[in-house]
Amino acid sequence: MIDCQSERSSVILNEVKNLYSDTIVAPATTPGTGAISIVRMSGPECFRIADAVLKLQRGTVSEAEAYTIHYGVILSDSEGSVLDDVLVSVFHAPHSYTGEDSVEISTHASSYIVSALVRLLMEAGARFAEPGEFTRRAFLNGKMDLAQAEAVADVISSTTSAAHRIAMNQLRGGFSAELSALRSELLEMASLLELELDFSEEDVEFADRSKLLSLLDTAKAHVDKLASSFKLGNMIKSGVPVAIVGAANAGKSTLLNALLGEERAIVSDIAGTTRDTIEETLVIDGILFRFIDTAGIRESSDTIEKIGVDRALTKLSQAEIVLALLDLDTPEESLLESVHSLASRVNFDSQKLFILLNKADKMGISAVNKNVTILNNFVSRAEYKCNILAISAKTGKGLEELEKALVEAEKDLIPNADSTFVTNTRHYEALLKASSALAQCRTSLTRNIPTDLVAEDLRQSLRSINEILGTDLLDPETILHSIFRNHCIGK
Amino acid sequence: MIDCQSERSSVILNEVKNLYSDTIVAPATTPGTGAISIVRMSGPECFRIADAVLKLQRGTVSEAEAYTIHYGVILSDSEGSVLDDVLVSVFHAPHSYTGEDSVEISTHASSYIVSALVRLLMEAGARFAEPGEFTRRAFLNGKMDLAQAEAVADVISSTTSAAHRIAMNQLRGGFSAELSALRSELLEMASLLELELDFSEEDVEFADRSKLLSLLDTAKAHVDKLASSFKLGNMIKSGVPVAIVGAANAGKSTLLNALLGEERAIVSDIAGTTRDTIEETLVIDGILFRFIDTAGIRESSDTIEKIGVDRALTKLSQAEIVLALLDLDTPEESLLESVHSLASRVNFDSQKLFILLNKADKMGISAVNKNVTILNNFVSRAEYKCNILAISAKTGKGLEELEKALVEAEKDLIPNADSTFVTNTRHYEALLKASSALAQCRTSLTRNIPTDLVAEDLRQSLRSINEILGTDLLDPETILHSIFRNHCIGK
Repeated sequence: MIDCQSERSSVILNEVKNLYSDTIVAPATTPGTGAISIVRMSGPECFRIADAVLKLQRGTVSEAEAYTIHYGVILSDSEGSVLDDVLVSVFHAPHSYTGEDSVEISTHASSYIVSALVRLLMEAGARFAEPGEFTRRAFLNGKMDLAQAEAVADVISSTTSAAHRIAMNQLRGGFSAELSALRSELLEMASLLELELDFSEEDVEFADRSKLLSLLDTAKAHVDKLASSFKLGNMIKSGVPVAIVGAANAGKSTLLNALLGEERAIVSDIAGTTRDTIEETLVIDGILFRFIDTAGIRESSDTIEKIGVDRALTKLSQAEIVLALLDLDTPEESLLESVHSLASRVNFDSQKLFILLNKADKMGISAVNKNVTILNNFVSRAEYKCNILAISAKTGKGLEELEKALVEAEKDLIPNADSTFVTNTRHYEALLKASSALAQCRTSLTRNIPTDLVAEDLRQSLRSINEILGTDLLDPETILHSIFRNHCIGK
Repeated sequence: MIDCQSERSSVILNEVKNLYSDTIVAPATTPGTGAISIVRMSGPECFRIADAVLKLQRGTVSEAEAYTIHYGVILSDSEGSVLDDVLVSVFHAPHSYTGEDSVEISTHASSYIVSALVRLLMEAGARFAEPGEFTRRAFLNGKMDLAQAEAVADVISSTTSAAHRIAMNQLRGGFSAELSALRSELLEMASLLELELDFSEEDVEFADRSKLLSLLDTAKAHVDKLASSFKLGNMIKSGVPVAIVGAANAGKSTLLNALLGEERAIVSDIAGTTRDTIEETLVIDGILFRFIDTAGIRESSDTIEKIGVDRALTKLSQAEIVLALLDLDTPEESLLESVHSLASRVNFDSQKLFILLNKADKMGISAVNKNVTILNNFVSRAEYKCNILAISAKTGKGLEELEKALVEAEKDLIPNADSTFVTNTRHYEALLKASSALAQCRTSLTRNIPTDLVAEDLRQSLRSINEILGTDLLDPETILHSIFRNHCIGK
């Protein structure tokens, strides 16, 4: 039955494939000034179309051998005026990115030439590619599974070594291999159960229940391990959320600017941030941090005043690291009250608290030390697990120590060469579904629920894993569309 | 003697060449999101360096045949972790862009991957290329002459069909061929003169003076024709300067915005514009126009008031086309005075005047027609050659007619397939020098000045032509540096 399902999906896939058997063209390089631009074309007619537009120095594109490069010119009109000199790279199906006949045309990096060339190729029969359509065809032609195809976009957008490593592992099939191993385990169980099902009228129990349970536990542990890597994987991909909280005049924005300015590293706005918080990313020692500058939290814990700080507190509760910024030059009692008020909102099981005593430049060293000691005693008595640092956001004092402490706190985020991390929400959700189906399966087994119901749970977990790999798409068009529309044109 | 000169230059060129015999690397595509990025490497060690960093699926880069493409991976460290899948294109000297052994490595379009790959190649022995160094090497290795090398940057930056066509003609050697023909004519004359010089002690006159004069006139006409194409060529490349002049409230900025907004065509700021004028370019029917919005000109011609409008008047005097914007709703006398005042500043031999009666939307059609008729009679009596159009910058009325009239006025700027235009100031200046040396030569010939002085003038004109082609560089390092530093990295 499971095999039938597989066959049915591949029939559907073939139908989808036939919809896309025309020849597509798109620029594959970013527009802008540079030396070279590439225009990419893929599909059954691409050699013929290339020959209609290009004149090679020797022979034709149709006659060219696979994996060869040819010098030629683009003929821009019937008079034979030359649009550009080009190099044409020829790929034969199935040995190309898409698995189809393909050519890559390398021109001078002029947006004028690129758009004129694309227009000529379209006039000769090519269609302008949809976003992600080259990668989509690669998937449909079996060049990569869905998890690998999704990794292409992640590889392109990676900005740190860790994020790149995870995306590359996924692209090169590391993640898929792990899922395939898992799938084999589940299939083995399934076949045992199916066997029993076939003979169920005879009331014979083939499958050894204790062996099934043990296989089930191994598989579920595997699924859960992958699902639990999502938190780390997502932090590596999108950055460790660091909330900077504190009163309005504590120096939060100064701290953010000082951190960003000192580093001159990759810095960008996160799209879609809410208006009342500012998010900036910063790479420190290969780890991507996402600093969230919140609105000032009023130091009083008065119930009525809380309303105004709710949003900042939400950011605080979602952060991996909380940087609580306090003015060193505050009376002891009020300082301790602030610390207590902030710390009481931190979940010490999953969050890390840094107490930063700011404006250290304004005080003598002994006054700084005195306040740090008082605070150390206080948090130790209250059993708050936290780092306390005296800094000056204004002069930069203490920021290097802060960065070191941040990196130390997140050193787990530097993955080993072959670590597998789930970074994609779609995969994470599929894994959660698989896990819950397996849990259901286990309950059924221990309660002697009829075998056919147990088998259905198992199939559900298999379907979830297959969904990640794209080998079992019940509604392939919808899923493919939602996955590939976020790719850029030309990919 | 002329040949000696040539030999000397090629000795110098060889010295320059030896300075650049190391292996260079640079990204050849624009950073940004896309599908593919290319890293380019050129020089004697490039295959060895590629093999130190890349692992091909089959064989090595060093063993690869010319013009072939190879699938492989980038090994990012000694543990063998993979940075990316790549395609490597292999080119053997002298059949490459630079004329040296070269490879092009095609990666996923990630700036992380590109910078990591470049770093690895540099660690293995490559040097980061200077701006334009690939093209510079192509010149030094005789793959193209200097005029062609300079055309590369023009091809990349062309935004209209006409500009592209001229640059492409230059890149493909059309301009160089014309200069070479000219050079042959001059060399023929020179050899006649040199012959006479060798026998000068014997007081024999070999060269037929009238034949020499005829050759000279042909050559000078040729040089002058090329030099005179600079005005058109420069307008095609940089845009036809169109000054929008008129009183401050005439609607000049509204007109500029309406022209730009309606078209949604390639629009950009011209770098280096002065603060008091705004320049915007716009392509209409393939012709690049550069609109210059000047400060308002006071309508009075009072001497003291002139000072404030001097800058606008300078722009007016430099423009190819003057758009004089007037408010239709102006008393007749004052309107005619304004027209007279503006028209008197236009040089009708070289400039074209458009009188635009703005704010036509505010008046009834008969009032508009009446004013247009009055103005037509006035300019006809005054013998001002101009177009008169009633427009409304606010509603867009009449702008289409204006654009058509602008294109009609500059239709000479659409070049034929093989037209040669000089677009480069360096070339233009060299041609002017050649022309003046030939004029001097002619004077000397007709005045029976001693042959050796005539020969020196002729050599001067030859040197100027050679300077354009780069075949006679007296101070090659300085000239090359100033030409190639404006190229982008990777070119």
